[in-house]
Amino acid sequence: MSADGKGDRLRRVVVYDTTLRDGAQGPGIAFSASDKLKIARRLDALGVDFVEGGWPGSNPKDTELFAALRDAPLERARLAAFGATRRAHIAAVEDENLRDLLASGAPVCTLVGKASAWQVREVLRCSRDENLAMISDSVAYLREQGREVIFDAEHFFDGFDADGDYTLAGCAAAAAAGASWIVACDTNGGRMPHEVVRGIDALLERLAGLGPEGGGAARVGIHCHNDCDLAVANTLAAVEAGADMVQGTINGIGERCGNANLCSVVPNLRIKLSLDALSEEGLRHLTETSQFVAEIANRTPSPQQPFVGEGAFAHKGGQHVAAVMRHRDAYQHIDPALVGNHARVLVSDLGGRGNVLYKAHEFGIDVERDDPVTRRLVRTLKDMEHRGYSFEGADASFEMVIRRTRPDYAPPFTLLDFIALTERRHGNGAVISEGTIKVRIGDEVHHTAAEGNGPVNALDLALRKALVPRFPQIAHVRLHDYKVRILDEAAGTHAVTRVLIESGDIRDGRRWSTVGCSPNIIEASWAALADSMEYALLKVPA
Amino acid sequence: MSADGKGDRLRRVVVYDTTLRDGAQGPGIAFSASDKLKIARRLDALGVDFVEGGWPGSNPKDTELFAALRDAPLERARLAAFGATRRAHIAAVEDENLRDLLASGAPVCTLVGKASAWQVREVLRCSRDENLAMISDSVAYLREQGREVIFDAEHFFDGFDADGDYTLAGCAAAAAAGASWIVACDTNGGRMPHEVVRGIDALLERLAGLGPEGGGAARVGIHCHNDCDLAVANTLAAVEAGADMVQGTINGIGERCGNANLCSVVPNLRIKLSLDALSEEGLRHLTETSQFVAEIANRTPSPQQPFVGEGAFAHKGGQHVAAVMRHRDAYQHIDPALVGNHARVLVSDLGGRGNVLYKAHEFGIDVERDDPVTRRLVRTLKDMEHRGYSFEGADASFEMVIRRTRPDYAPPFTLLDFIALTERRHGNGAVISEGTIKVRIGDEVHHTAAEGNGPVNALDLALRKALVPRFPQIAHVRLHDYKVRILDEAAGTHAVTRVLIESGDIRDGRRWSTVGCSPNIIEASWAALADSMEYALLKVPA
Repeated sequence: MSADGKGDRLRRVVVYDTTLRDGAQGPGIAFSASDKLKIARRLDALGVDFVEGGWPGSNPKDTELFAALRDAPLERARLAAFGATRRAHIAAVEDENLRDLLASGAPVCTLVGKASAWQVREVLRCSRDENLAMISDSVAYLREQGREVIFDAEHFFDGFDADGDYTLAGCAAAAAAGASWIVACDTNGGRMPHEVVRGIDALLERLAGLGPEGGGAARVGIHCHNDCDLAVANTLAAVEAGADMVQGTINGIGERCGNANLCSVVPNLRIKLSLDALSEEGLRHLTETSQFVAEIANRTPSPQQPFVGEGAFAHKGGQHVAAVMRHRDAYQHIDPALVGNHARVLVSDLGGRGNVLYKAHEFGIDVERDDPVTRRLVRTLKDMEHRGYSFEGADASFEMVIRRTRPDYAPPFTLLDFIALTERRHGNGAVISEGTIKVRIGDEVHHTAAEGNGPVNALDLALRKALVPRFPQIAHVRLHDYKVRILDEAAGTHAVTRVLIESGDIRDGRRWSTVGCSPNIIEASWAALADSMEYALLKVPA
Repeated sequence: MSADGKGDRLRRVVVYDTTLRDGAQGPGIAFSASDKLKIARRLDALGVDFVEGGWPGSNPKDTELFAALRDAPLERARLAAFGATRRAHIAAVEDENLRDLLASGAPVCTLVGKASAWQVREVLRCSRDENLAMISDSVAYLREQGREVIFDAEHFFDGFDADGDYTLAGCAAAAAAGASWIVACDTNGGRMPHEVVRGIDALLERLAGLGPEGGGAARVGIHCHNDCDLAVANTLAAVEAGADMVQGTINGIGERCGNANLCSVVPNLRIKLSLDALSEEGLRHLTETSQFVAEIANRTPSPQQPFVGEGAFAHKGGQHVAAVMRHRDAYQHIDPALVGNHARVLVSDLGGRGNVLYKAHEFGIDVERDDPVTRRLVRTLKDMEHRGYSFEGADASFEMVIRRTRPDYAPPFTLLDFIALTERRHGNGAVISEGTIKVRIGDEVHHTAAEGNGPVNALDLALRKALVPRFPQIAHVRLHDYKVRILDEAAGTHAVTRVLIESGDIRDGRRWSTVGCSPNIIEASWAALADSMEYALLKVPA
């Protein structure tokens, strides 16, 4: 495998992300429209070539996302809307799904169609010719309406194995009708690398036979699922055979065993196979993008995930930390910085201060290496990490920790006590939550109480009651999101609850996130809530 | 790739399991000697050819394991002890590590040695010749003592890339000294399939050149790590190139990104590549072995794990359950029964009566299509979905809903009232949670209270206090996991909280999941908790 040698230019592989569509099919994943928008912007910043937003019309969230992206388009990536070829025996112009695709306003439409004779007969239940007409008509109609069309050939490899002519005929129909890409899909994820190579070879040959005017300009992509633990290998094999587009998802999320993991595919393409996929700069943001998507999906990131996992470059220090550090290159396959990750030496506290300085710098806070305050800060952070804190996605809490360590910091308020009570009385009566809090503001102690629709909401409302008279700007702060994760600690210790709260200023839409950890969910929530309010008092104009 | 055509016999691939040695290096894994013994017996029953027990002398647990297996050996598998070649500049007979290997009593010794000139120079810091002598002497000495020797050629592929002659010389030295297997290791996990093929080709050629008397009878194995997400693909590529032994771990546990996952490698070898690896019967126990090892390792099994994951064969029902069921084979790449798994239909949209009937049938509950009870059930489920319920991953709650709809269902207990209180008093004092509950069991009302490390834990303990005297089997039920999701973040204070609880019977490891939804997190948790206990009373033997 080598670069495609046009002078010094590396062969370019186009990255098509389907985290928001196929990834969203993963078990337990429920992105809101706002989640999707956030992820789309991140993918755009990362530098993927195509962002597939979803299936317009299939649910209100996707419709909302496309509307939001019409008003404020992505900066670099092309936005794709996903849908199926027209239904059998109707005109393309009358097909509701195609209408929804057009209404989405996305410049690219990705059309999925059957590329397997068996599927056409048994599942679609129409004639072989009608399916080919469905493909042709749908592609042609969307092209007439000025859209770029990508054709996802569903069950390509299974179909190719059983009746290769028909499978290739379906792809040729799409290409002839004007699709710019034909994407071979291993929909059921059951194929081996050598089968993928055979299918891609045949597809390329068939398309070349169409001639430049007849669809031969269409290029080939690959879409793999991980049911055999080979999605990444199959994707790379397809690229080696000549496919120029890779489809996949961040962290490999998706139905069943997931999709090809772009966090593995892209570094392999770029670092191992010396191809051009994302920029070097984009690659350096891969780890944080992986963590960001895991956070939004409310999934614990796997520490063992290749390239981007927290433990992907972990070295067991043991008694030989120095030796391991000296020979780190001997025990890691790439420099982790290339993908925005870093080596960790387990068991040791080496580099603790370096990390803190680095993070503080990242937040634009000056911290001096040899300042005693810095040493205290490092101790505090270590202690907090030990208790389950993680500041990934909770920048406001991290900033508060730094500020509180400084000798000149005066907190705007001090929380004294709280009670959170939830009760149901008299059989099937309604559940009531009541919170009381005691807070010191300057010299005064305020003792307030409120009812809420849950204990955290009740505490939030009670705290606002105490703060608003003195700090009216708090009235503009809203809690937007509340996420809870239970951290499984080593056997014997109690599970720790980590709560993430996202808050925002309703006037300018600015948002910030805070974190709290405790074995007690209420205490963890309370800590995140208090951080959020304290942060608001520093940042939200009165 | 095809079978090795000796008559009808399939080519045989030897399975070497290193779960107990390389797998035990995985983050957070701490097997006791008794854990290891249990896993060794399971692997033996599964039919793996070699079980690597550990590194004798490196820690007391491994020494204890080998002692136990001397007294009561494995039935089918050969037991291997792992260790390094002798240290530089001493005689093999004086090497402590080799002595420990012999003392272990294991019939097979797996020796790791350097197969990279760079590693010899930079890490080992001895001459190239001395390293070759260390390999030769160590293998020869263990052979003289009557042991079978497997040589793990560390950093084989990196070494081969930089200085192939030296790497192959190291392997040839081991073969000439009597090693029965030469195992090429991608120690850092950084290699691509085509590089693996190149290395295996060269190794086979070199060994063949030794002639039958000079070590040419040694066979070739492969040991891969997953740092590029390619451990399974690389292992298969090596087998296709002629390697006859695969090394790996159950669930791919291991350092950094883990080892080649035998739960993926073996089904691919057997089902996809039609090779002989494990028996068909063994393959059918793969899923339960995977779950067993995950359990012992105290790791939540990944539902997305290929072949053996709980969701590996999950189908989304939607509005077309009937179609999906009829064509299940169209949407799965193998029959899941081959690996001891089974298909699941996720009930993510209960709109249709067909879904409800199907799911009820799966639970062994007779529901008649036209029964008024069924109509009531569909209404109830729709109403629950509207309130935020989703039964995807909460089979036990779904079953409880069905049971409760039936006129003849008598609940074992009825919850009346509860209070969950969390408070912090006196400034920075500790946070306390207390739960009180009132529950009716038969004619009696029990009113109990308990403290917990959070409000839900407190309610759980109070409920157990009430139930255990009458239903002692509840004492065997544990809460394993607690997940919280906030639905519809835009709604802010009106957001619905969905709680998922996983419980299990500690005696047989059976698990079930329940769900609760409410704007109030405590009420949602309470509902999931109550479902779990009620379900346990129906299912857990007294």
